Amino acid sequence: MEGDGRISRRGLIGGGVAGALGASLAGAAGTQAKALSGQKQTPATQNADVCVIGAGISGLSAARALVKAGKTVVVLEARDRVGGRCYSVPIPNSNNAVANMGATFVGPTQSDVLALMDELQIDKYPVYSTGKLLWYENGSAKPYTGTVPPLADPAAELELGLLLPRVDQMAKSVPAETPWTAPNAASLDAETLASWTNQNVVDPNARKLVALLMEAILSVEPADLSMLYTLWYINMAGSIETLVGNAGSGGAQDFLVQGGTQSISEAMASQLGDRVLLNNPVRRISQNANGATVYADNATVTAQQVIVAMPPTLTGKIDYEPQLTAMRTQLVQRMPIGSLIKTIAVYDEPFWRSQGLNGQVTSDTGPVKVVFDASPPSGSPGVLLGFMDGDDARQYDDADPATRQAAALKSYVNYFGSEAGQPRWYQDHVWAQELYTGGCPACITPPGVLTEYGQALRQPVGRIHWAGTETATVWMGYMSGGVQAGQRAASEVIQALR
Amino acid sequence: MEGDGRISRRGLIGGGVAGALGASLAGAAGTQAKALSGQKQTPATQNADVCVIGAGISGLSAARALVKAGKTVVVLEARDRVGGRCYSVPIPNSNNAVANMGATFVGPTQSDVLALMDELQIDKYPVYSTGKLLWYENGSAKPYTGTVPPLADPAAELELGLLLPRVDQMAKSVPAETPWTAPNAASLDAETLASWTNQNVVDPNARKLVALLMEAILSVEPADLSMLYTLWYINMAGSIETLVGNAGSGGAQDFLVQGGTQSISEAMASQLGDRVLLNNPVRRISQNANGATVYADNATVTAQQVIVAMPPTLTGKIDYEPQLTAMRTQLVQRMPIGSLIKTIAVYDEPFWRSQGLNGQVTSDTGPVKVVFDASPPSGSPGVLLGFMDGDDARQYDDADPATRQAAALKSYVNYFGSEAGQPRWYQDHVWAQELYTGGCPACITPPGVLTEYGQALRQPVGRIHWAGTETATVWMGYMSGGVQAGQRAASEVIQALR
Repeated sequence: MEGDGRISRRGLIGGGVAGALGASLAGAAGTQAKALSGQKQTPATQNADVCVIGAGISGLSAARALVKAGKTVVVLEARDRVGGRCYSVPIPNSNNAVANMGATFVGPTQSDVLALMDELQIDKYPVYSTGKLLWYENGSAKPYTGTVPPLADPAAELELGLLLPRVDQMAKSVPAETPWTAPNAASLDAETLASWTNQNVVDPNARKLVALLMEAILSVEPADLSMLYTLWYINMAGSIETLVGNAGSGGAQDFLVQGGTQSISEAMASQLGDRVLLNNPVRRISQNANGATVYADNATVTAQQVIVAMPPTLTGKIDYEPQLTAMRTQLVQRMPIGSLIKTIAVYDEPFWRSQGLNGQVTSDTGPVKVVFDASPPSGSPGVLLGFMDGDDARQYDDADPATRQAAALKSYVNYFGSEAGQPRWYQDHVWAQELYTGGCPACITPPGVLTEYGQALRQPVGRIHWAGTETATVWMGYMSGGVQAGQRAASEVIQALR
Repeated sequence: MEGDGRISRRGLIGGGVAGALGASLAGAAGTQAKALSGQKQTPATQNADVCVIGAGISGLSAARALVKAGKTVVVLEARDRVGGRCYSVPIPNSNNAVANMGATFVGPTQSDVLALMDELQIDKYPVYSTGKLLWYENGSAKPYTGTVPPLADPAAELELGLLLPRVDQMAKSVPAETPWTAPNAASLDAETLASWTNQNVVDPNARKLVALLMEAILSVEPADLSMLYTLWYINMAGSIETLVGNAGSGGAQDFLVQGGTQSISEAMASQLGDRVLLNNPVRRISQNANGATVYADNATVTAQQVIVAMPPTLTGKIDYEPQLTAMRTQLVQRMPIGSLIKTIAVYDEPFWRSQGLNGQVTSDTGPVKVVFDASPPSGSPGVLLGFMDGDDARQYDDADPATRQAAALKSYVNYFGSEAGQPRWYQDHVWAQELYTGGCPACITPPGVLTEYGQALRQPVGRIHWAGTETATVWMGYMSGGVQAGQRAASEVIQALR
């Protein structure tokens, strides 16, 4: 899966630091140890200044910043791979093209991840955007250009044109660092995006499009989201347009990552070398006046400080000694993660392009309601990437793979005709089935949580610091937020180690 | 703590079944084994028809029903005691009076727990209700009788008088078994109790009282609750009046349990004998075509069927092999539990009674906003039981005990004068700090969850069945619901074993 051939590993930080910290990356990955009780080997104990838990883009960014600052680090990763929600698989017989089964795009204002990619010499390339998008409504597909699809109901289109700037304006009043201090925070956090929309959007078709936008962004339904959270999320990205804009519009979907998004984590892991221990789900973290001890399935790490870089909902699975604060314990009961299935269909050529289409679709009909062209720069093979979000994902999360594939391809055929039903390769990824993620793309907060528990989100508990994209203050929920959060946690720890 | 002197253990089911199932209750309790990785003994493997996880009132009810049906059972309990959210501590020098730090009352319509108490020959006695209640508002206490307190704002009182029957009527339309099939389920589940109240209750003082009622019932704020969940919860209890009624009104607060609520679980555990293994947090459940294996810290149990009788939010901490359905995995990310601190103050005599007061208080001022007289039948000592709920609890969840005590007693003094500030004994219990409960009284659902995931709440996953009061359909959230859910899970399992 992680064939070195397709990923360029350039640049090296702290290259001279010897591998004094135990089993090498390759060695640990090779063990493939199972975590069954009663079958454990006695884990080796290692010592470092800092133990980082989670080798996604956030944890690895933290580890990298710490190594740069001269600290010793061990990274414990539960899976047999790095990257977390960034997971890229090679497309067979495709001249090293990859399919991103999780995080996919980067945008021009995502400066933290772009700077990291520059350092790692990982390139990006524009998502294909020549030609028209498709809006599929009531069973027929309509080509269009611009941001708002050509809704059959012109009143809805008009209302949306007024609504979106209004919401952007509201979003600006929600501070990224402390959303609970926003004016009207209590009342905004007392309602859902759905109830707010029901009060503030007249046209039911406009409401439907609001739902569609939020499903596409967070893979949840408007009923799931605190209105305060929604505005906060928008503000951390800049605007609704920045979040949902078409490829080429300056938003979050402008670029694809050469070699796939996972290659960013792989490049960092390669630099960190044997500091990264795979196959090590962490079960317990203890801390006292002298330091902390992290117990994983195949390693025990003693450290002065710990960075936990996981989706908040999963941090509740670890045992802590002493227990965390009640505020933190209850917060993570209240940060569920969305329901997302990514589907990839590969064709010999991007046949839609010759029809004047750029492969982007927005649709009122599931299960795949959003599609992008995710082909490599050469345009061969042709790759379509489709999202099942929220209710659509729930309908197929526990379905058998053949049923899911048939449902996805039916959507592709709706949009691009019968040719789309015969991909030469299909793959999907059900994030709600991922034990070490729990869903995708990011943890949300239902009403009440930000105002009641928000202060516990980034607050360290003793020697334990929190990273992961959910703790970011810029582009939270994205790779860029993960990088920012990891670097911020590293700064906290460097301060604490002084 | 569990002195046998204060708890009558009468009645015995399956008394002739020998203790073939491993370490005795006392023996296991004596081990006090720690769960630190790397320090484990190899756990003994035991076999039974059914493994029940959780020795609260629900799990023990399930185990008892199974033993009655001739099945072999092992119960694994994480704590060093049984009872879960029922936790009764002896009041020193009080002739065996106890303080209930968790579940406290039973009501006349809670037939499942009442029948169980009858079988176990555990008595109840009426909560003292002679004399007047107190309504504390804007800094002064006003004695009253009846259900709705004498609000300073008569318009609010009037509006509440109209509102509560209307909500009761709405509640009746939400089916206990399948709340997601209620008429308007989607729209009711798209908003919070807070947003519904903001739309449907005009007077801000009436809104405040709605908040106060729900805080008292579920230890959360109106912003936290799906309106659909709120109505469902009311319907499963009967009515708002049944939920919040004063002692003596036929509601949930009519009776106290002789010997404390924990004695119900202790009596069942005594009957089950060495089938109950304490100090056994469960880490992993595996299942295949032949059976299931449950891995706990000090025992491994193989069984044909498994009943998990824990708050849903905590079931997400266990590893499952194979993984549970995505629906179940994501459901339990979405069922947080309330924030409740119970405070107990003990005085030589119930001095408030001689002032014509029955000890019941409702207040607009925290941190203790609801108080009951929880004295033993003899009236000596005098015991006040006060609740810190929701925001009030969060303010003191992580405070040092002295600060919390001072804040609680300040409330008591507000209501009953300076004498109330000098209890001869004080104790409180912060449920959000309880590792094996996570909060109190019961898991709730924010908006969206019931309609999106409700079907996964009781749905067995292979050999795993779900108990715990959150899976009840009558008096969900109460001891009675726990009993009903346990018995229902046992019936499912008996069916499956055929």
